[in-house]
Amino acid sequence: MPERTVDIVIVGSVGIDTVETPYARRESILGGSASYACMAASYFAPTGMVGVVGADFPEAYRKLYADAGINLDGLRTVPGDTFRWEGKYEANMDNRSTLAIALNVFEDFKPELPAGYVNAPYIFLGNISPQLQMHVLDQVKSPEFVLADTMDLWIQTAPDDLKKLISRVDMLTLNESEARALTGGRYSLIRAGRDLLELGPKYVMIKKGEHGSLLITRDNLFVLPAFPLERVVDPTGAGDTFAGAFLGALARFGGISEKNLRRAMRCGAVVASIGIEAFSLDALRHLTLAEIEKRVSQFRAYTAID
Amino acid sequence: MPERTVDIVIVGSVGIDTVETPYARRESILGGSASYACMAASYFAPTGMVGVVGADFPEAYRKLYADAGINLDGLRTVPGDTFRWEGKYEANMDNRSTLAIALNVFEDFKPELPAGYVNAPYIFLGNISPQLQMHVLDQVKSPEFVLADTMDLWIQTAPDDLKKLISRVDMLTLNESEARALTGGRYSLIRAGRDLLELGPKYVMIKKGEHGSLLITRDNLFVLPAFPLERVVDPTGAGDTFAGAFLGALARFGGISEKNLRRAMRCGAVVASIGIEAFSLDALRHLTLAEIEKRVSQFRAYTAID
Repeated sequence: MPERTVDIVIVGSVGIDTVETPYARRESILGGSASYACMAASYFAPTGMVGVVGADFPEAYRKLYADAGINLDGLRTVPGDTFRWEGKYEANMDNRSTLAIALNVFEDFKPELPAGYVNAPYIFLGNISPQLQMHVLDQVKSPEFVLADTMDLWIQTAPDDLKKLISRVDMLTLNESEARALTGGRYSLIRAGRDLLELGPKYVMIKKGEHGSLLITRDNLFVLPAFPLERVVDPTGAGDTFAGAFLGALARFGGISEKNLRRAMRCGAVVASIGIEAFSLDALRHLTLAEIEKRVSQFRAYTAID
Repeated sequence: MPERTVDIVIVGSVGIDTVETPYARRESILGGSASYACMAASYFAPTGMVGVVGADFPEAYRKLYADAGINLDGLRTVPGDTFRWEGKYEANMDNRSTLAIALNVFEDFKPELPAGYVNAPYIFLGNISPQLQMHVLDQVKSPEFVLADTMDLWIQTAPDDLKKLISRVDMLTLNESEARALTGGRYSLIRAGRDLLELGPKYVMIKKGEHGSLLITRDNLFVLPAFPLERVVDPTGAGDTFAGAFLGALARFGGISEKNLRRAMRCGAVVASIGIEAFSLDALRHLTLAEIEKRVSQFRAYTAID
């Protein structure tokens, strides 16, 4: 068996966010898709982060990752400033607008995998350009399961590269509007999902935020509500948290079966629901697997019928 | 045991609709909350309709009810025209606008229950004014379970009567925006539901359309996704179909338990999903309980994890 330091490799952004909700505002908090996804995945299996930060990246944030056991061999530090994002949520927490964005060191990001990562079986290609996602994919040896996320920007600016990438992954995950945009305006998410399967992946997982998620496979469907929450503090990173916990759970369960995919999605929904109860990684960083399992049981109770 | 001709009494509107979707338009089709709810309930238990139609009400529509076994002792025919509604759906089938409405004979509607209805154990007070809903409630002897629906109009124009009504029912059902409007703009549906429980009912059932439904009880929650559909033809009446099938299933299962409420909601979601696959009652009128059970099994397969 080839040597490896992690079971899960996650590539994505690492950033410093300023987030405003109708109830509060937090400046310069830790964010980025890789931050959320790695933190969520790390509860389930050894996880390595591939990303880039600037010289200004606070040591406290790096320690936060390390304390969670996230392998940082793939996190490069380069001269310059860390990626920054500022966003504001509307009253329903559903719509948000980007107030400011500065790519900084992320602009020249070219993800290179450390030797201990290339044999990892589970890969999450977080939301970066499809070219870079493919560059990561070119480096991994024989992954068992590759999950890719994307966003509107790449659907609009790099549709051909994106389709090439999609043809090479096991699962594509995206949100409702992205699924529709990528399929020319399909209103039915199931049809959009089936169209996307035609591009090559075995699975399409559509994230619907507070309305749950949907798994479309070649011969089946799975619908999962969101974990019901009384109060959402900060929805930033929920999709990445979902994806990270999903992939982590899949790695932990071992083996890709319909049942494991469904159980892993439930873990994704549960960990995402915990994450959005606080700003940044505040609620995610001190979790235990036992606490996650407790909420899984609660979720089961909230959805059980027979 | 007092004599009765039906187990379920449903009061609501009976109307002639003109419906336009992005794909088709149908003129003068059968509609109204009582039509949808009675048709859905009638598959589960003997159901009586309380409503009013004008002299212009087509005999074919009356026969359609009768063929489904709906008891029409409570359906009055009076001089004048039947209630008419015209609506148009936007591309996503989520938003609709009312293009025209003519209350006609519905304006002077005062629901009177036939002798065979007053001992019915299951009552659905469909969406009419809270005063009239209370007038129906005053006539029933000792119902086991009273379900009430409402709408924005009554929340705005008759909030005090509505709250009085709510205090007298077992379950209130309403959609997301109504739940928020009735609780002064609560964004959390769970909190809105808990606020509504304070008004007196034991249960609040929130309908979220394609996003499923939510049951809030004093000490529990239940979340149910919608049955996943590839194609929606006409969403008109989905909420009433849900409520009718829910109440019908509850009557059929016998006894109000958390488990029966959940199973009944699944029946509601399933029958509603069938209903919106065609205009008017076209998909609902030729159903069998076996077909409903088949889709319930399918739904179970689409949601099962453990």
